[in-house]
Amino acid sequence: MKTNELIASCQNEWDGYIKHRFVVELGRGTLPKEVFRHYLEQDYLFLIQFARAYALAVYKSDNFVEMRKPLAALHSLINHETRLHVEYCNAWGLTEAEMMSIPEATGTVAYTRLVLDAGQSGSLTDLYTALAPCAVGYGHIGRWLAESPETVWEGNPYREWIETYSGEEYQSGVIDSIAQLDGLLAEISDNSLNAGRIRKVFRSATCMEIAFWEQGYDAMK
Amino acid sequence: MKTNELIASCQNEWDGYIKHRFVVELGRGTLPKEVFRHYLEQDYLFLIQFARAYALAVYKSDNFVEMRKPLAALHSLINHETRLHVEYCNAWGLTEAEMMSIPEATGTVAYTRLVLDAGQSGSLTDLYTALAPCAVGYGHIGRWLAESPETVWEGNPYREWIETYSGEEYQSGVIDSIAQLDGLLAEISDNSLNAGRIRKVFRSATCMEIAFWEQGYDAMK
Amino acid sequence: MKTNELIASCQNEWDGYIKHRFVVELGRGTLPKEVFRHYLEQDYLFLIQFARAYALAVYKSDNFVEMRKPLAALHSLINHETRLHVEYCNAWGLTEAEMMSIPEATGTVAYTRLVLDAGQSGSLTDLYTALAPCAVGYGHIGRWLAESPETVWEGNPYREWIETYSGEEYQSGVIDSIAQLDGLLAEISDNSLNAGRIRKVFRSATCMEIAFWEQGYDAMK
Amino acid sequence: MKTNELIASCQNEWDGYIKHRFVVELGRGTLPKEVFRHYLEQDYLFLIQFARAYALAVYKSDNFVEMRKPLAALHSLINHETRLHVEYCNAWGLTEAEMMSIPEATGTVAYTRLVLDAGQSGSLTDLYTALAPCAVGYGHIGRWLAESPETVWEGNPYREWIETYSGEEYQSGVIDSIAQLDGLLAEISDNSLNAGRIRKVFRSATCMEIAFWEQGYDAMK
Repeated sequence: MKTNELIASCQNEWDGYIKHRFVVELGRGTLPKEVFRHYLEQDYLFLIQFARAYALAVYKSDNFVEMRKPLAALHSLINHETRLHVEYCNAWGLTEAEMMSIPEATGTVAYTRLVLDAGQSGSLTDLYTALAPCAVGYGHIGRWLAESPETVWEGNPYREWIETYSGEEYQSGVIDSIAQLDGLLAEISDNSLNAGRIRKVFRSATCMEIAFWEQGYDAMK
Repeated sequence: MKTNELIASCQNEWDGYIKHRFVVELGRGTLPKEVFRHYLEQDYLFLIQFARAYALAVYKSDNFVEMRKPLAALHSLINHETRLHVEYCNAWGLTEAEMMSIPEATGTVAYTRLVLDAGQSGSLTDLYTALAPCAVGYGHIGRWLAESPETVWEGNPYREWIETYSGEEYQSGVIDSIAQLDGLLAEISDNSLNAGRIRKVFRSATCMEIAFWEQGYDAMK
Repeated sequence: MKTNELIASCQNEWDGYIKHRFVVELGRGTLPKEVFRHYLEQDYLFLIQFARAYALAVYKSDNFVEMRKPLAALHSLINHETRLHVEYCNAWGLTEAEMMSIPEATGTVAYTRLVLDAGQSGSLTDLYTALAPCAVGYGHIGRWLAESPETVWEGNPYREWIETYSGEEYQSGVIDSIAQLDGLLAEISDNSLNAGRIRKVFRSATCMEIAFWEQGYDAMK
Repeated sequence: MKTNELIASCQNEWDGYIKHRFVVELGRGTLPKEVFRHYLEQDYLFLIQFARAYALAVYKSDNFVEMRKPLAALHSLINHETRLHVEYCNAWGLTEAEMMSIPEATGTVAYTRLVLDAGQSGSLTDLYTALAPCAVGYGHIGRWLAESPETVWEGNPYREWIETYSGEEYQSGVIDSIAQLDGLLAEISDNSLNAGRIRKVFRSATCMEIAFWEQGYDAMK
């Protein structure tokens, strides 16, 4: 089993996530600012739960060698990505104190707690599988936007976002994530019960990412 | 701290859940059948996760005396409630095999995994607090519908549902649930950090119940 | 991978456990009564943690079909085995209230918490692997004692114990346990990383069973 | 409830741990080298599980502020303490590769898995309570040795060990650990059920530390 096969096993859902109107409108620069702001707020709350998921991966490790990868991810998430995110949010008029007190929306709860529950109830492979729609998907989204002829660069208020996720640094992290998940998936035979469970986790996690895109629009109604 | 104070601490969300249009329309008999069928399907998937939550409560117990309550709940959930639910679904044209293969909708994932994560990451009190909007809320809903002058009994296709949750057997189970949660909450001082966390869990779980009502309507769009 | 191969992968430790002097002396009827009494007390505390482990297996299940087996085990453990154990202990002059207040000895903590941690941090297969030295091993011990020419039946104060574990009912339960674990192990290739981890869990759990036998003698010093 | 009261609630066990013959002989420089070497090997395996426990504390945190403390502890454990420990072991002729392949002894399994299970099944307070016999106890041991007239400094092969744990850096970390645990314990009333459980966890963890000291002597027999 490989990451690409996981994606192929739910290609419709995957495309629905990668090419969601949120992404398309972000590329064109037409995404309503309220929707983006809602996304920024929820993404902050999302990062808290993601840090917890990487901590769970450290807990699920057998030795210091195994721990090093999720620990590096955790460290970078807390000291790098979250700081960048908070700075970026400040530029959109959102303070960290405000974001801490905002309630988590349904899609945020759904995706993050699915990841944490898959991780607690399953193996390390279940945990990384549930994380993949985020860890791998944002790379696909960045690349798709960068390559799309419809993407507007000049004057696009979301240009920085697109540049971050299509940029070399992020893309190289995605290659690492895929390599790591491929290593874990190599242990699973295609027709096994484990394979069935892993595919279900991946599809469900992808659907929850769609719900995460959707919720900013719902909030505007 | 008491269950009633938890409810009062998020009265708006609680009312939004108990008196949701799903409930109102169910009482009047005007709820679209597709919405109800969607609810029945998701409720089956919900019960699986609820059984897991009670199993978690058994795991979190220190001795046989403590285990007995969640074990009885687990037993009754699997051998009684689920069977009744499956029979009831059959009457609505849904088989168990079908329901097992339906994907979980966002609201189902959100509420159930929030409960499981609150239970894993917190104490037994966090777990039962997250379960309360369901365990206690359905009792409030049943009673509210039974007492409401707007409730239609004659020819209401949802009459059996209303009778189940307003019935003596269910209501007496709710009293037990409240007593048990009150016992756990008695250990928590009103102004403590734990109290803050518990209130947040309860409010968030209540909001996810609203999302659970809402999702049948979303699916119809 | 199969249960038998797990045993073969640590045959020395396994034999050290199955043919421990505790077992040998129990078969000959020469085991010091204080050692046996200590074992009975600790075994009661052990059963509490074992019930928690089966509850964890229910929690780790994906659907009602998977839940049924560990739930039946949990039910039988609490309502049947524990009751028998308490009755049996009464005959040796130990009450349940007394046993509840005795501190867990090191071997009891070591084996039971290893099982629970293997179960929480790994997959369902890790959990059942850690349980196997108990679930499968007591069957081997019972059979070994029943077949050994050194076993004394007449006047052996431990005859009932030997009869229980060599008896048809217990032996048939062991066959079920092996079949179930074999089903889970079939998913694991012999040379995989998972296989390495599973063998380590099994060997470590077997060593903790040895510590469990040993602790009664230590307490007498 | 306070850390000091926890200690007072099992003063005999605490003294049995702090003033164990392992500690006394270490202070006098008479501890058999084989016993100390066994301790060093097991302490390496212990640190792996301790890192997992701090990762669990990060997972159990609600927000970035709460995460920071256990994350700093985790970071320092992996990048500082473990490195120092490995260097120190090298000086005693032990390589990291060797230590990774040594099986965990019973006392190591018992203490570490008790901590992890208390943390998984209970709250963050249960987790830190179970960690305290190590986090706080080594500080008491270091101070007791430094103040004891029986401690031999000149030519003591364990002088570096004593200096580490009685040193200012370690002692100031202990003060922080106590302050943090006191903060969590402040939420628990003395006569509550939670208080009873917390005391039991602390006493049991202290007894497992005694088993950890003892196991080097057992291995020599």
